[in-house]
Amino acid sequence: MPLDCTYRLRVPHEVGSLARVTGTIAECHGLIGDVKTVVVARREAIREITVEVRDLEHAASLADRLGAVEGVQVIWYHDRAFIAHEGGKLRVDPVRPVLSNQDMRDVYTPGVARVCTAIAQHPGLARRFTTIGRTVAICTNGTRVLGLGDIGPVASMPVMEGKAMFYAQLAGISAVPVLIDTGDVDEFVQAVVRIAPSFGGIHLEDISAPECFEIERRLIEELPQPVMHDDVHGTAVVSLAAAIVACREAGLRLDEAVVGQIGLGAAGFGIASLIRDAGAERVIATDPGEAARERAAGCGIEPVPDLETVMREADVVIATTGVPGLIKPEMVRKGQVILALSNPEPEISIDAALAAGAAAAADGTVVNNVLGYPGMFRGALLAGAKAMTTDMKRAAAWAIAGLTVESDQLVPDVLDPRVHEAVAAAVRQAAIDSGVADASRTPTALDDVPVPAGVRPRGT
Amino acid sequence: MPLDCTYRLRVPHEVGSLARVTGTIAECHGLIGDVKTVVVARREAIREITVEVRDLEHAASLADRLGAVEGVQVIWYHDRAFIAHEGGKLRVDPVRPVLSNQDMRDVYTPGVARVCTAIAQHPGLARRFTTIGRTVAICTNGTRVLGLGDIGPVASMPVMEGKAMFYAQLAGISAVPVLIDTGDVDEFVQAVVRIAPSFGGIHLEDISAPECFEIERRLIEELPQPVMHDDVHGTAVVSLAAAIVACREAGLRLDEAVVGQIGLGAAGFGIASLIRDAGAERVIATDPGEAARERAAGCGIEPVPDLETVMREADVVIATTGVPGLIKPEMVRKGQVILALSNPEPEISIDAALAAGAAAAADGTVVNNVLGYPGMFRGALLAGAKAMTTDMKRAAAWAIAGLTVESDQLVPDVLDPRVHEAVAAAVRQAAIDSGVADASRTPTALDDVPVPAGVRPRGT
Repeated sequence: MPLDCTYRLRVPHEVGSLARVTGTIAECHGLIGDVKTVVVARREAIREITVEVRDLEHAASLADRLGAVEGVQVIWYHDRAFIAHEGGKLRVDPVRPVLSNQDMRDVYTPGVARVCTAIAQHPGLARRFTTIGRTVAICTNGTRVLGLGDIGPVASMPVMEGKAMFYAQLAGISAVPVLIDTGDVDEFVQAVVRIAPSFGGIHLEDISAPECFEIERRLIEELPQPVMHDDVHGTAVVSLAAAIVACREAGLRLDEAVVGQIGLGAAGFGIASLIRDAGAERVIATDPGEAARERAAGCGIEPVPDLETVMREADVVIATTGVPGLIKPEMVRKGQVILALSNPEPEISIDAALAAGAAAAADGTVVNNVLGYPGMFRGALLAGAKAMTTDMKRAAAWAIAGLTVESDQLVPDVLDPRVHEAVAAAVRQAAIDSGVADASRTPTALDDVPVPAGVRPRGT
Repeated sequence: MPLDCTYRLRVPHEVGSLARVTGTIAECHGLIGDVKTVVVARREAIREITVEVRDLEHAASLADRLGAVEGVQVIWYHDRAFIAHEGGKLRVDPVRPVLSNQDMRDVYTPGVARVCTAIAQHPGLARRFTTIGRTVAICTNGTRVLGLGDIGPVASMPVMEGKAMFYAQLAGISAVPVLIDTGDVDEFVQAVVRIAPSFGGIHLEDISAPECFEIERRLIEELPQPVMHDDVHGTAVVSLAAAIVACREAGLRLDEAVVGQIGLGAAGFGIASLIRDAGAERVIATDPGEAARERAAGCGIEPVPDLETVMREADVVIATTGVPGLIKPEMVRKGQVILALSNPEPEISIDAALAAGAAAAADGTVVNNVLGYPGMFRGALLAGAKAMTTDMKRAAAWAIAGLTVESDQLVPDVLDPRVHEAVAAAVRQAAIDSGVADASRTPTALDDVPVPAGVRPRGT
């Protein structure tokens, strides 16, 4: 597995010494990333150089080669990912510290009893005076994690923590990883239903298909808060955004286009469904699985017999098969939009697709779910939404598409806070418009509302 | 219900004007707390004065009276507890922010996959490279919250958030409130077992007796991590600490003393059991409930028929009955230690007990569980303990007792970080000594361990 490895080096602080180091790395086929100068002394400097290497063996042999460069000493080298995961990636902290006796009286006994009593009498106040109104549970059983497959709940934790980091940083949402130790649909649903009151939203993650469909359907049915399987709908929202921009680039209108989906797993099914609901003229799809084809047909997606039919009939082709090189250049029609989304190797490379006549092309690197879910749940929570509707997903996709500045990227920069604000605003409005918002308009913990005058909190 | 109310006032900035305000508050029988000067201008100042008032009506009438003082204007007044709860009291944040493309590669794809793979191969690494090793779930169904009774899971949330604040601030532990929507023992146990892999420890809170005993027993049996019902064992640890100090004050030796427990609810049972295990010569107890007496007898506690027997035979009397004034001064024997722990009104006041001849006395204000659980779970997590043993609880109590500086308080200052460090160190050592610590000594996320040299994380 390729890795980003950081080498901490002691090098002579003189002209040409870094060039010798980088030259050696290049000779060893390492791809250089960040170079950080840690300390500069009179004669020497300490630098950290990050290098993408093929594997641990490659990392070790590069360390040996660097150690042999004149004047250079390798102090240590590490896989950067492990450094970044040391001690875990999340922390739960008080919003305000407890510093005095009066603070204790306010946040703990006796003050807390008054807040508990108020919530017991007026349950809607929990959205404002507890964290529930800005908290999402990220629930997984670890049965389908990244490209790694069924690695179980505990080994999936770093992914859940990563998702939660983006919730906090990009949307001000407190997300809590909840690892659920079962592969059984009933048991999973039951566990989530029992603990659901703690959270304003339920984000499902990395659950294998087809169980994920049943789990999501039942949780949506049973719970009063929004539930969304990100691998289905988050992926669909970002893919739709990319498709919207690609169509714009190609001079196509989505509502007049035939869209062809290749592969109807969790992501492919989600994409095809959302694009159909978003108003594409016609959505066709192919998949070897009969159950998958039937599920799609039930949602207005037209199953077609094979890849060739999709390539022949579709103006916009979206592939999520996990099969590298599945789409041959000779299958591409001139003017087609090709989104070959499998990671890490796409069904056809962007260059090959464009060379074969595609009007626009993208691979899996554009579809970063982090563009979608943080703002989507923020919007849903702000609205006090009871569900994550198709309208809300569609609104999120259009908001993302509207913020794409570099059109050859198809999607905007994931770390740009304006993207997430725009998604949240669009989703909140869509929730209100589609009638799933909290009609009482009780403020939530995400709203910036002052405590109203008088000792009675609003709503009591 | 009495409350702490903050009045924001505009007052003339001249000698005597604050005296007029405080005089008016005194006339209205308000007990003044903090006085904060917000703004001072040339002629006037804005001050926030906190006053303990009887109820909302009292708060409103005081506002009227203050508004009538010459030159004084009441800008607003609020219940401080609601101000302190606005937006909830906790937040989940990234330990390090994600600022660059390289950060994304380290904490999310592709880097995260390497960490997941390492954990899948060596599950012990989860303790170090995820938050699991420093996370505790605070699980409740809200069936017995403070003195409020069964208010349900959602209304209990402010208490759980308060507990979690202290975990973070005093012990560096990330605690997550988990509200479990069921009164049924089986359902509760099942839900906790399913989500348990997410957490290094399970803290049970505010669950009614007798269900709490069965729930804790089964979770201890089924789970590989420490489980503790704080209302039973946390209370017991702090009460034992107070008893140790009180005995010291009274010139008694606990191991030669007869200890009498009045009331065998969750707290009383926990206290009597721990004091027995801590080596008291003899522990007698009284309770109207037959099941409670039998449970106690099964743990080596000797049931006696009535309060009078306890008062006559015990050197140390501990009462947790919820009945104010239950212990009459004439029942107190000279030289006795009396801990009358019911809140907010004790079974006998400290003054009355001392006047009647008690050598030492305390009420419920000394038994603040916050002295116990944060350090106890920190110690358990640092040791990688599989359970919270009696030895660990005993060690915690002795550590707390050892740090009491003002002996008339019986326990140390809850916000003193040294207390929690000492408790954690004692509990960690006790876990190792009693053989429940992780024998492999894998570092945890709470340990301050550097990433070892080489790209292979320790243990792989």
